Amino acid sequence: RILHFIHLNLHQSGHSAIGILDMSIDALNLGTRENIATITEETPIIDALNLFAKKRISALPIVDKDGVVIDIYAKYDVINLARERTYTNLSIPVKTALSYRSSDFEGVQTCRLTDTLGEIINKIIRANVHRLIIVDGARRLQGILSLSDILSMLVR
Amino acid sequence: RILHFIHLNLHQSGHSAIGILDMSIDALNLGTRENIATITEETPIIDALNLFAKKRISALPIVDKDGVVIDIYAKYDVINLARERTYTNLSIPVKTALSYRSSDFEGVQTCRLTDTLGEIINKIIRANVHRLIIVDGARRLQGILSLSDILSMLVR
Ligand SMILES: Nc1ncnc2c1ncn2[C@@H]1O[C@H](COP(=O)(O)O)[C@@H](O)[C@H]1O
Ligand SMILES: Nc1ncnc2c1ncn2[C@@H]1O[C@H](COP(=O)(O)O)[C@@H](O)[C@H]1O
Repeated sequence: RILHFIHLNLHQSGHSAIGILDMSIDALNLGTRENIATITEETPIIDALNLFAKKRISALPIVDKDGVVIDIYAKYDVINLARERTYTNLSIPVKTALSYRSSDFEGVQTCRLTDTLGEIINKIIRANVHRLIIVDGARRLQGILSLSDILSMLVR
Repeated sequence: RILHFIHLNLHQSGHSAIGILDMSIDALNLGTRENIATITEETPIIDALNLFAKKRISALPIVDKDGVVIDIYAKYDVINLARERTYTNLSIPVKTALSYRSSDFEGVQTCRLTDTLGEIINKIIRANVHRLIIVDGARRLQGILSLSDILSMLVR
């Protein structure tokens, strides 16, 4: 049924519908691959807030010193943080803030450049997330693919 | 506990913490009040997608001919739409697309210009939404107050 949706849409918007869901996001050049804003576990919360505000993005991959993606900090986590009383100020590191994240957090959702658009859409729906972090085989950050990128493709 | 969070943050960012949570969003001049992008129930889905992409916003209030807010169409609804097989193309009106929305949708979350920041934050957390639609006593559209607006206040 997703196939049906995208087929029709891509057709409408002038793309050839044939096979596009079977194309990799790499081939489709989908998502942001350069100048990805990231943070580490040690980044103060206030710096993450500033990145959200200035870059107008809704999530920041958390990477280790080797560029391996270990978690994600999303704009929405900030308001969740407000539920907790166990921190003191915005200079605390992201790590401390996330230690209070509710236990139903399923972990950061990733994808590969070789994944097809069809696989990506299924994953976004299943995980109920706004974006997937694109990683390589060693889980190093390659980019971000957000709902915004898929929408842009549909309307261009 | 939210009081605690905001108190500290506003203090840190140079605001006086005293009473700010008891101030109305009107007094705080919080949220977007002008040039609100809206749609009607008859707006074709493709037009809504174009507004998301061009204006870089994540939701559109659905208003009737008197400017009364009757629903909301969010960027996320587009991927949910893909779950359904009952529509045919992107020229269908928003109304038809939303008729397939899952039954756990709680309705559009609104607030008033006279609501205090404290009330707003509680409502956003309770409803687990990204923004509230600001309405007047007759439920006519007055503006939008999003998580982005609260974050901007914290960092400025
Ligand atoms: N942390 C990030 N760094 C750079 N670009 C991003 C980041 N997060 C999202 N984007 C891109 O910014 C646009 C808006 O994404 P979003 O905020 O998720 O709607 C999309 O083109 C994303 O690929
Ligand atoms: N439909 C809309 N029309 C105009 N401004 C909006 C709309 N939705 C959100 N905004 C504003 O755009 C900014 C980003 O909001 P958001 O996309 O919800 O993160 C915030 O300043 C909102 O107040």
